[in-house]
Amino acid sequence: MPYKEEGSAPFKAISRQILFADPALKCELRYFEMAPGGYSTLERHEHVHAVMILRGQGHCLLGTEVRPVAAHDLVSVPAMTWHQFRAPPDEPLGFLCMVNAERDKPQLPNDDKLGRLRATPQIAAFLDGRPIP
Amino acid sequence: MPYKEEGSAPFKAISRQILFADPALKCELRYFEMAPGGYSTLERHEHVHAVMILRGQGHCLLGTEVRPVAAHDLVSVPAMTWHQFRAPPDEPLGFLCMVNAERDKPQLPNDDKLGRLRATPQIAAFLDGRPIP
Repeated sequence: MPYKEEGSAPFKAISRQILFADPALKCELRYFEMAPGGYSTLERHEHVHAVMILRGQGHCLLGTEVRPVAAHDLVSVPAMTWHQFRAPPDEPLGFLCMVNAERDKPQLPNDDKLGRLRATPQIAAFLDGRPIP
Repeated sequence: MPYKEEGSAPFKAISRQILFADPALKCELRYFEMAPGGYSTLERHEHVHAVMILRGQGHCLLGTEVRPVAAHDLVSVPAMTWHQFRAPPDEPLGFLCMVNAERDKPQLPNDDKLGRLRATPQIAAFLDGRPIP
C-alpha cells in the first residue's frame, strides 16, 4: 500500500505493508521497504517504535545521531525523538516496525527545527543523501 | 536465554531472545530459534501470537493442520489453538513472535487430548518428527 497519503509529509520511494493488525493484539507489526535512495518521513511522536532491520543496509537518524544500520540490527525509537531511515543510492533497505495500535499523530519539524538539526554536519549529510562524514 | 524452565514443558533444542520488551509498548517481540530437529512446546492459550519466519524452514502445527513454513512466511496463532513449531532434521528454524505483554499462562495437552490430535496421521508424523505424509 502507499506509505502515506501523497503530499502529507516528505518521503521518497518507500512502501508499507501491515503484516499483523489483529484486534486481539495491542501492537501492529509493519514492514517498510525503501528503494535505493529512498527514505522515510523525518518525524517524532509520543509513541515509540521497535525496529528490526530485515533487508539491506542504510542509515538512521535518531535524535541527534546518525548511525549505520544493517540486516538484523535492532533500533529503539524513544518518545518524541526525531527519526528517519534512508537507503543508500545502490541498495534497498527494509525493516520491521512494531508499534502500539493506539498512538498519537506524528509531528514534522518546522524550518527552525530542521535548521538546528542541519547544524550537525553528519545530519546535514544524511538529510541531503550524501556520504556521512 | 533458556526457552523455558527445564522440565516445565516438553521442548527440544530451542532458544529464546527477547528483542523488545519496552514498558511503553503493549507487546513484546521475541526471536526463537530451533536447532535441526528442535521443536517448541505444544501448547494453547487465550493470547494470540503473530509469527514471522525469519530463518530456515520447517513445519508448524496449528489447530488440526500441519503446514510447511519458510523464511518470511506469516503465521497467526488464534486464541486457544494448539500450536507447535518444528525444525527439520538438517536445518535450523528461526522465527519472530509478537505477543501482548500481558497474557495468560499456556496450557499443555493431557494424554486424552494428545491422543485425539495423534488420530490425524499428519499430526502424528509431525509430533514424531517423521516426514509429513
